[in-house]
Amino acid sequence: MADIIKKAVLPLSGGMDSATVLAIARDLGYTVHALSFDYGQRNRAELHCAARVASGQEAASHVTVRVDLSAFGGSALTADIPVPKGAGQPVGIPATYVPARNTVFLSLALAYAETLGTGDIFIGVNALDYSGYPDCRPEYIQAYETMANLAVKQAVEGKIRITIHTPLISMTKGRIVARGMELGVDYSLTLSCYDPVPDGRHCGRCAACGLRAKGFAEAGVPDPAPPPSL
Amino acid sequence: MADIIKKAVLPLSGGMDSATVLAIARDLGYTVHALSFDYGQRNRAELHCAARVASGQEAASHVTVRVDLSAFGGSALTADIPVPKGAGQPVGIPATYVPARNTVFLSLALAYAETLGTGDIFIGVNALDYSGYPDCRPEYIQAYETMANLAVKQAVEGKIRITIHTPLISMTKGRIVARGMELGVDYSLTLSCYDPVPDGRHCGRCAACGLRAKGFAEAGVPDPAPPPSL
Repeated sequence: MADIIKKAVLPLSGGMDSATVLAIARDLGYTVHALSFDYGQRNRAELHCAARVASGQEAASHVTVRVDLSAFGGSALTADIPVPKGAGQPVGIPATYVPARNTVFLSLALAYAETLGTGDIFIGVNALDYSGYPDCRPEYIQAYETMANLAVKQAVEGKIRITIHTPLISMTKGRIVARGMELGVDYSLTLSCYDPVPDGRHCGRCAACGLRAKGFAEAGVPDPAPPPSL
Repeated sequence: MADIIKKAVLPLSGGMDSATVLAIARDLGYTVHALSFDYGQRNRAELHCAARVASGQEAASHVTVRVDLSAFGGSALTADIPVPKGAGQPVGIPATYVPARNTVFLSLALAYAETLGTGDIFIGVNALDYSGYPDCRPEYIQAYETMANLAVKQAVEGKIRITIHTPLISMTKGRIVARGMELGVDYSLTLSCYDPVPDGRHCGRCAACGLRAKGFAEAGVPDPAPPPSL
């Protein structure tokens, strides 16, 4: 029996969430075309991790697109603003917010998807990002999907339908880790830290390291890539 | 009296339409921050013209962002597909369509606008593009605006409202030229051609050259940057 190949495009960051989505999409029968973004992030280790995850989790392909968001400034992830550390971090949208990041990434994923002739785009946005990043909320994703179906030739011609799949959107970090472990995700390949120490290990003190630690604690499993002792 | 500075972001291609929009936005009292895209287009002269237009038409700033759409292939503008020439070109969405181009460009303009603290984005989409490019239609622009207001921090916090201004959307090419001439646009700085001859002049035979010729003919003025004799 010849299966129909279902292609999907996935923005892949090198972190836990997109690594888990890669495994979920493969489990759903998609061949996954991973797309990473060199957007001038000061954390260059992220891009190496993305390549490691794409290879280790059997993506069908992996391309990195250079798009220089650092020309715009405005975020601790691309500019010379310190990454917030430790307790007492401000509530609301964090300093590590990158302007329109998911919109830029989804738009490049959309261009790539149309080139591949597919409308299926997966993205690892999740519930714990809601409070901070506007472009992780379900109403944003829905509006993006509506726009995308008006934007591209093959969708307008009825050949494909753009669907933004967000399998993590209502999961806790603990549930994400648990699901990833079930699917055999090797989290030692992933890097979550906003500001890793020079040898590439997690700092253990930024918001992203905090969420990662919470995820493994909730799932009741040890992190295979632990932070350095504090 | 101190005027409030109204900033706007404008994707600037080096062609007639965005040059005209620059003049319209300035006439409306905006200081215009022009944004060009090095997306691997084989027509490199386009980027030089954008810089010339930004300078000649008094943009407040001009930045060029590199975003490598050629990695995806799929268009005569970035890949090794011949640009259609002469009469009898196919109807429908043309071969020169770049996947999700306006979505990618508007998304980068959105990121830049938020960094500048403004929600005003101008774009030179127009009526004559309707038949060919889905991402030039009013329903697309409206869906983009809805999405954008859910996407970025300052819009979600109510500090700005994203508005995608499309002053050319219902104009004919002739009306665009006439309006530009009224506002003093120097069209000799612009380049419309999809496939210019090596010295940078218009080929005079592609669809873009055809539209340009039609615009000047309808406006009843000579093109200051004429194509080579055929």
